[in-house]
Amino acid sequence: MNKPDMRSYLEQIKPYVPGKPVEEVEREFGLTNVIKLASNENSLGPSPIAVKAMQEKIDKMHIYPDGNSFYLRQALAEKLKLNPGQFIFGNGSDEILSFIALAYFSPGDEAVTVSPSFSEYDFAARLVGAVPRPVPLRGENFLYDVEAMLSQVNDKTKAVFICSPNNPTGSVIGRAELDYLVKKLPEKVLIVLDQAYIEYVEDPDHNDGFGYLNEGFPVVILRTFSKIYGLAGLRIGYGIAPVEIVADINRVREPFNVNAMAQAAALAAVGDDQHVIRSREMVASARKQIDKGLAELGLKAVPDQANFFFVNTGVDSKLLFQEMLKRGVIIRTGDIFGFPEYIRVTYGTESENKRFLEVLKASLVELS
Amino acid sequence: MNKPDMRSYLEQIKPYVPGKPVEEVEREFGLTNVIKLASNENSLGPSPIAVKAMQEKIDKMHIYPDGNSFYLRQALAEKLKLNPGQFIFGNGSDEILSFIALAYFSPGDEAVTVSPSFSEYDFAARLVGAVPRPVPLRGENFLYDVEAMLSQVNDKTKAVFICSPNNPTGSVIGRAELDYLVKKLPEKVLIVLDQAYIEYVEDPDHNDGFGYLNEGFPVVILRTFSKIYGLAGLRIGYGIAPVEIVADINRVREPFNVNAMAQAAALAAVGDDQHVIRSREMVASARKQIDKGLAELGLKAVPDQANFFFVNTGVDSKLLFQEMLKRGVIIRTGDIFGFPEYIRVTYGTESENKRFLEVLKASLVELS
Repeated sequence: MNKPDMRSYLEQIKPYVPGKPVEEVEREFGLTNVIKLASNENSLGPSPIAVKAMQEKIDKMHIYPDGNSFYLRQALAEKLKLNPGQFIFGNGSDEILSFIALAYFSPGDEAVTVSPSFSEYDFAARLVGAVPRPVPLRGENFLYDVEAMLSQVNDKTKAVFICSPNNPTGSVIGRAELDYLVKKLPEKVLIVLDQAYIEYVEDPDHNDGFGYLNEGFPVVILRTFSKIYGLAGLRIGYGIAPVEIVADINRVREPFNVNAMAQAAALAAVGDDQHVIRSREMVASARKQIDKGLAELGLKAVPDQANFFFVNTGVDSKLLFQEMLKRGVIIRTGDIFGFPEYIRVTYGTESENKRFLEVLKASLVELS
Repeated sequence: MNKPDMRSYLEQIKPYVPGKPVEEVEREFGLTNVIKLASNENSLGPSPIAVKAMQEKIDKMHIYPDGNSFYLRQALAEKLKLNPGQFIFGNGSDEILSFIALAYFSPGDEAVTVSPSFSEYDFAARLVGAVPRPVPLRGENFLYDVEAMLSQVNDKTKAVFICSPNNPTGSVIGRAELDYLVKKLPEKVLIVLDQAYIEYVEDPDHNDGFGYLNEGFPVVILRTFSKIYGLAGLRIGYGIAPVEIVADINRVREPFNVNAMAQAAALAAVGDDQHVIRSREMVASARKQIDKGLAELGLKAVPDQANFFFVNTGVDSKLLFQEMLKRGVIIRTGDIFGFPEYIRVTYGTESENKRFLEVLKASLVELS
């Protein structure tokens, strides 16, 4: 048909193939009580205080959101002891990845990433015709290889994306390694630290990166309310960066990008430390339960610092996915990350983990 | 500081200067009961059925949204008698403007717009370094000048943006004029029909543009739940286009761009025709009330087909804004649209309109 030509570099983006809503899966397979451990959501749900804040907001949804996220910005600045001007809010933290690409990347520019990792770094780069340069993680524990990352940096490199804890492996970059990387990078290369899962980290050798802000490094720290805060459905995340970088990336932000319900819920969630503690405890005990259950099946997950685990099942994960789906448990296959025999699974409640382990066992038997 | 260089064409985008939340204005001026008639929101609020749908969704906000807006897509396709594949959903319809720019525009490309109109067409073009070519609307009734628009089309033109009813003037493009324009345009030029206010149109000489879809024209129709549906706070709008165009612009969409609360509320709102009828009736009677009140002050608004009006006050609208703000009524100044003595005001409930007229009168007296 007659239409403008799409920008040719967008052909590198794989079109999103939508999954079906859980309700549709239940209908199709004649199931009830399907559980989804595929998206690293918090099985405890939103904070009860956030739930109350949402209830109070419902009848005001005809009013446009505050384009400046004024109250949330104040609350976070106070909590994290930062300047309110160092924050930028996104429709999920993935939107901020696109802002970075739109503000700084040109076609042919490069971004260093790792593999396997979260797909949105590639998406953001490809969105404007830039090219991701993925560096494999090292060994069976999927550790960062900072020398290999530095070797991929050249004159075209505009940014390095570091996801820690890393999705899908759950592995983290150590303090000394991150320091080495940050200090060796050419001074105009942006360092993006995606900390979507940082609230789950127990390892004391993890760096929140706030120090780099004060030292003048071009760092953008990304955080989200989708994970431990249990607000994935509302889409809200934020970036923390020096004010000069915030000013640049704020230019490409549409004024009402963060909805009013999300702002209200996030503001309440920031004040509910108890929910964060409960969620962290749930994951810590889930990890023990899962480790034990996997060991009984002769499996061992990659050591993680997140609310999910990555495990080599020894079978084709797409077949395993189908077997588990038929039994009402949805997990994430590893093929999309380049590891076709791995699965990525979210830690759930005790009963969810139990069901997962039973269904995994039955499915592996079926496939053997 | 050390940071990557921002893409130079972004300097053409005016950084967004956030307004303060109404609560902050009330605190600052020591006011209570401030009314905002500045953003073309629906004073009747969300549909009661949508409110109920939101209540039922609150405790599921830890789950990611359906990336395909499956149920809403089905409902709209059925209601509008279109193919589900002809829809694309956005975090507000303004996000779809950015998708269009990202999919089709390159630096130096051009987009024909009108002036005054909604600022987001310019924003979307500038976001990727394209250049808006605004064509003035004609005469005191701000009518479309299709010959002048066609004269701005050249080899670099990628799209024409038509907002009808037009924001901020409320004027519409007639059926014959739109037909003439669509058929005279070079065949690869995209025609974007922004119908954010179409539910308020009473003029039978208005074209919904659906016919162009079947005739193979490269049309994108934009609609929103922010206006008559009273869901501005949740951010949800949609585009309707031929499937080939949907496929292109869907490539630049992040999968979870539309939040789950918005999808639930919009789905319910689509089924509540009574709320739409009530809202339309409120505006029709508000228009009579305002026309009469303005006439008593010697003023006359531009004839409109929307839920707002644009009126020449004969005084500096920024001074008028301040006077009205002090008295607790927020309106939109015309200077941002290039008409410094005009104001744009949303039709409200009878009591809001009464208050607006009283405050306008007192403020004009103060300024005379």
